[in-house]
Amino acid sequence: MGFLNSGVCKWIWCLAGVGVVFLVGFTIGWFARPTKTGHSGAPPQSFLQEFLDEMRAENIREHLRNLTRLPHLAGTEQNLRLAEQIRDKWLQYGLDSAEMVHYDVLLSYPNETNPNYISIVDDRGNQVFNTSLSEPVPKGYEDVPNIVPPYSAFSPKGQPEGDMVYVNYGRTEDFFMLQRDMGINCSGKIVIARYGKIFRGNKVVKNAMLAGAKGIVLFSDPADYCAPGVQPYPDGWNLPGGGAQRGNVLNLNGAGDPLTPGYPAKDYTYRSSIDEGAGLPNIPVHPIGYDDAVVLLRNMGGPSPPPGWKGALDVSYRIGPGFVDGLAKHKVRMSIHTNNQVTRIYNVIGKIRGAIEPDRYIILGGHRDAWVFGGIDPSTGAAVVHEIVRSAGKLMGRAGWRPRRTMIFASWDAEEFGLLGSTEWAEENAKALQERAVAYINADSAIEGMYTLRVDCVPSLHTLVYDVTKKISSPDEEGVSLYDSWHKKDNWTSDRDAPRISKLGSGSDFEAYFIRLGIASGRARYTKDRKTEKYSNYPVYHSVYETFELVERFYDPSFRKLLAVAQVRAALVFQLADSPLLPLDCPEYADAIAKYARSIAELANRHAQQMLQYQVSFDALFSAVDNFTAAATAFHERLDTLDLTNDMELRMANDQLMYLERAFVDPLGLPGRPFYRHIIFAPSSHNKYAGESFPGIYDALFDIHNAPDQPRAWDEVKRQISIAAFTVHAAAMTLNPVA
Amino acid sequence: MGFLNSGVCKWIWCLAGVGVVFLVGFTIGWFARPTKTGHSGAPPQSFLQEFLDEMRAENIREHLRNLTRLPHLAGTEQNLRLAEQIRDKWLQYGLDSAEMVHYDVLLSYPNETNPNYISIVDDRGNQVFNTSLSEPVPKGYEDVPNIVPPYSAFSPKGQPEGDMVYVNYGRTEDFFMLQRDMGINCSGKIVIARYGKIFRGNKVVKNAMLAGAKGIVLFSDPADYCAPGVQPYPDGWNLPGGGAQRGNVLNLNGAGDPLTPGYPAKDYTYRSSIDEGAGLPNIPVHPIGYDDAVVLLRNMGGPSPPPGWKGALDVSYRIGPGFVDGLAKHKVRMSIHTNNQVTRIYNVIGKIRGAIEPDRYIILGGHRDAWVFGGIDPSTGAAVVHEIVRSAGKLMGRAGWRPRRTMIFASWDAEEFGLLGSTEWAEENAKALQERAVAYINADSAIEGMYTLRVDCVPSLHTLVYDVTKKISSPDEEGVSLYDSWHKKDNWTSDRDAPRISKLGSGSDFEAYFIRLGIASGRARYTKDRKTEKYSNYPVYHSVYETFELVERFYDPSFRKLLAVAQVRAALVFQLADSPLLPLDCPEYADAIAKYARSIAELANRHAQQMLQYQVSFDALFSAVDNFTAAATAFHERLDTLDLTNDMELRMANDQLMYLERAFVDPLGLPGRPFYRHIIFAPSSHNKYAGESFPGIYDALFDIHNAPDQPRAWDEVKRQISIAAFTVHAAAMTLNPVA
Repeated sequence: MGFLNSGVCKWIWCLAGVGVVFLVGFTIGWFARPTKTGHSGAPPQSFLQEFLDEMRAENIREHLRNLTRLPHLAGTEQNLRLAEQIRDKWLQYGLDSAEMVHYDVLLSYPNETNPNYISIVDDRGNQVFNTSLSEPVPKGYEDVPNIVPPYSAFSPKGQPEGDMVYVNYGRTEDFFMLQRDMGINCSGKIVIARYGKIFRGNKVVKNAMLAGAKGIVLFSDPADYCAPGVQPYPDGWNLPGGGAQRGNVLNLNGAGDPLTPGYPAKDYTYRSSIDEGAGLPNIPVHPIGYDDAVVLLRNMGGPSPPPGWKGALDVSYRIGPGFVDGLAKHKVRMSIHTNNQVTRIYNVIGKIRGAIEPDRYIILGGHRDAWVFGGIDPSTGAAVVHEIVRSAGKLMGRAGWRPRRTMIFASWDAEEFGLLGSTEWAEENAKALQERAVAYINADSAIEGMYTLRVDCVPSLHTLVYDVTKKISSPDEEGVSLYDSWHKKDNWTSDRDAPRISKLGSGSDFEAYFIRLGIASGRARYTKDRKTEKYSNYPVYHSVYETFELVERFYDPSFRKLLAVAQVRAALVFQLADSPLLPLDCPEYADAIAKYARSIAELANRHAQQMLQYQVSFDALFSAVDNFTAAATAFHERLDTLDLTNDMELRMANDQLMYLERAFVDPLGLPGRPFYRHIIFAPSSHNKYAGESFPGIYDALFDIHNAPDQPRAWDEVKRQISIAAFTVHAAAMTLNPVA
Repeated sequence: MGFLNSGVCKWIWCLAGVGVVFLVGFTIGWFARPTKTGHSGAPPQSFLQEFLDEMRAENIREHLRNLTRLPHLAGTEQNLRLAEQIRDKWLQYGLDSAEMVHYDVLLSYPNETNPNYISIVDDRGNQVFNTSLSEPVPKGYEDVPNIVPPYSAFSPKGQPEGDMVYVNYGRTEDFFMLQRDMGINCSGKIVIARYGKIFRGNKVVKNAMLAGAKGIVLFSDPADYCAPGVQPYPDGWNLPGGGAQRGNVLNLNGAGDPLTPGYPAKDYTYRSSIDEGAGLPNIPVHPIGYDDAVVLLRNMGGPSPPPGWKGALDVSYRIGPGFVDGLAKHKVRMSIHTNNQVTRIYNVIGKIRGAIEPDRYIILGGHRDAWVFGGIDPSTGAAVVHEIVRSAGKLMGRAGWRPRRTMIFASWDAEEFGLLGSTEWAEENAKALQERAVAYINADSAIEGMYTLRVDCVPSLHTLVYDVTKKISSPDEEGVSLYDSWHKKDNWTSDRDAPRISKLGSGSDFEAYFIRLGIASGRARYTKDRKTEKYSNYPVYHSVYETFELVERFYDPSFRKLLAVAQVRAALVFQLADSPLLPLDCPEYADAIAKYARSIAELANRHAQQMLQYQVSFDALFSAVDNFTAAATAFHERLDTLDLTNDMELRMANDQLMYLERAFVDPLGLPGRPFYRHIIFAPSSHNKYAGESFPGIYDALFDIHNAPDQPRAWDEVKRQISIAAFTVHAAAMTLNPVA
């Protein structure tokens, strides 16, 4: 620089200095400026682990203890008090809001002064045997008031008397066997069915009523309600002989309150007459335990039972009708005095307002009402929700965290009477939910066995379920993830090496959200070993023996299984609420649908000859599935290149993800079931518990299996294939580029 | 500064300089940084005026000339060629895409070798009179092939013969009058009804079929199809005596293709048999002109017509059944050979991809198919759409403009056969439309009279309609806005000083979008003076006399009326597509609903005694309306303080605005009409043309007006009030804060 004089040099330095200062200023200015919603696009610091770590087995134990002290049947003072406690506690935990929302729905209670029972009546009209009026109350609970005796909710009143017919599980195929193969007519008879295999409401309202029975007795057979080698409660977790299963016997198909189907049961709502109510039985129904069942069954006459009809009682399981010759004039009489009454129920709805997208909802809901103490059902679920709410509140207070989207917590009422609280709320909020709900996670009973995790959910949630279970510890083995222990115990199939995830059926509060509104849904709980433990539900299900002690002594003494379930439910809700890009997997949905299509086509192919004759083909469905698969793949490829910092692009992609599930819903509903609208998943008409894929096709084929040569029935199969193909095509279109 | 030495001083200056430079840098940096989606929040430079100014009357004239050269009936080669031309032209104009979308739907054509006609048959079976087989073709069109003769589309084949009964307009109340008050039984008769007052399909499929008629003749009476002092075409715009009105006689209630109700008529779609098709008549139907009608009517016997039943023909309008005594053995015979056939139709769908929210759709759609030349219906509408597309393309090319949201332009096929093209596309795209469609603007006939503007739209669009008409020139007066000339000619009412806007009924392609899917909709056209011009439709409606010359000579020689309509439709679409905040007015909706509630309650109060007796109250509805009004007001107050530069807030508010209309839709539909789902607006069951508010309540009351003492009917009124109240409450909830 020798040829420059120092003055010039000084100026250059000076200018350079000014330049540098300018640049520094510019740079700082550039980065200092907040981009308008800059916090929304960037993945937030994840508080997931903190959220999960905050939860404690000991707290869940305490919550369960508090929730199970007293009976809290829907519509009672005690269940209202419990709702108030939960609301207050949720507010105290730090939710932005928690409120009670009420509906006036049709409930059903035994007559307090005129009990229900079944009798054997001799030829002079004397009742020579009466079933017991209540269950022996477990030790420590002897002075507890308001324990409702076993009954079938919504049974009409009546004293039918007649010969009895044993109908096995009361399934469609059982009645077929009786009527077609054995020539036994149930018309005018009282039928007796064992609990298990299918939902009790299907036994009653569809099958027994159709068969012309004038009453139906339900009993718990030890073959279905006792695990081998286990003692009856309180020495073990099996059902004692005096225990019986309460439960509603509706066939609602998603209608909610029987008097206000489709609309919330508010003060302004028109109520139909009981005669026109949805899904109500018109024959008396009553449940009994196996001690009583032995007496009713031991002198049955008529033919021997077909294979598979024998339970584990020391009786012949003869079919009837009526008793053996010497007792042929003895009849069975039912005395049922149960009342239907419109009663106020209360949901508790708590919210955490989303920081960035408050108009996107993640719902965690489970019921609060119980038949008696609700030791497992639902209080293990409610205790888990309580602990999740507490942890979320803690996180908000301590870390200033707030989820990207709104979280809604629900304590539903009257689930036991037909999913009423959850369905009425879904009906009242249907418009907003349809536009805004991202996902619904169900929180009914958190445990039904001691073996491993069980998850039922939509295919788009599979990947998220796997991701979160890898972050949670197994309650069974130290240092092993929940994913790994689950995987080891319940691998999916030979062709998929991952833990098994099942389809959603129904029978709990996700029904209206998923099957009616098309909101992606899932549920998780601890379960039994499905390969070896063959009993139905869990043995003491819906009996007085569902106590806190049942869980504490037998099911989960450390409460670590419940903690694991809590963490799974919490993690699902957290990730759905807080991830900038919704963790929903469309190609996984495509794989599942492709599998379902193959499987329903195989089912139809059992009648290959008729398929040819009536020109029934699944090609349109397969072609729609191919289209959907291609759309899902391309969509996820576009997601890979999505600019997560661009709010509008992110929102548009999330909308496509959120609304995919909605695309599977058909407002016209399934045939004869206007509130079951999901074309990919719904219970079959024959069993509310079983989630079927392509339920419209499945039901049409069900009719055909019993009589394959019906042109009209095959026409219905064709129509249902066409609706399924349309729905899958339409869903594919929603994943295509938006314009 | 004397106490500071100059060194310090210099340093201070130096530091100050550095500080200033830093600040300048910082400031430039701050503002230089593009905010991520900065262009989206700020109101864009509005190209509205440029868009409107680009449109030319002369171009619309040319488009109309081109669109009306040849007949273009749905399902014909000529209409397919026209679709291809439109698609090619739209691409050339600059749309991002334009494509043909086809469906295979049930259409109906006369038998080409076996014509349809009506005869008078003497007692020896001779046909002593036959109605004409076609209309006299207007000058200049004598050599045009493929002019379909007047017929009633979807009439079944048949040759019924019998005595005729004149049934006035064939309305429900006309049949009541006949059967109840006059004791005339239509069973087994051929009925003859004049066109007008209600949709022809209601005359046929609901009323004549219910009355037991075995055939129905429709005729155009000069009282309903001639304006006083106007010459018949070609010397004026009145219907000549040889002209007759074509038209479909379906009662679809929104089902679309009769064989695939609810689903798009694609190759994979199940088609029901004709017997089970939706809305099809099962008695022969045929339309005639008034020259033929005179012959059929002049010898009618039976009683004189009741007041209001006389038309303008020089005959007695006696009721029948049958002819006067001397001719009592003469019968009327219909010879109908029309064929139903599944036929391919083509929509043209064009798009401009939105710049910022491509997943939000504004649809401008109108049909292309015509009964013959479609001089008015639909080609005035199609010409207008063409010019709007041209102007939009021009704006994109010249100014680099692109709308914020996606614009969709549609040329529908087979509207004349039951709104088939538009309904099938709505069915195929239902899921995406439900999630993404902001508004639908209809573009059927742009003119039906020469007097002033007519707008039918949802209340939320009222304010936008007023705003845009203030920016458009009146075609009637120099230097006056369209708004002002319209206002002068058709003020709303004594209590609202603004141009009248009407409720949407049905009868054109907005139906599926509005009444089934709940998309905010509107239509605009030039119309007659409703106070003085009492004829139905416009006189030559659906006849061969709807030519280019009809418009050019009589309706709009300067084409300035059509230009004004084009600008209204264009401005609505533009503002909906381009305004950052959607120009939808919720308080205006609230006012309208409040008015409708009062008005339906007044209608019910005509039976005040029964209201008391059956305990029917509108209080629940009024209370819901109050709730909605409060929610709408509060929502718009929040909009006033909305940060328009915050993309996410803007999107959330727009979603609430967009989805409001969706909230009025009930998936269960109106009673017996599963595809009419809008609870606030739908046609009554008795006339597809008339939009009723609270149609469920309206229809329930309709039954009661004829027989007020029916407890079941009042129960249905109560149920419908409850559904209306629920819907209004639910809509209010969607306007509340989102969490």
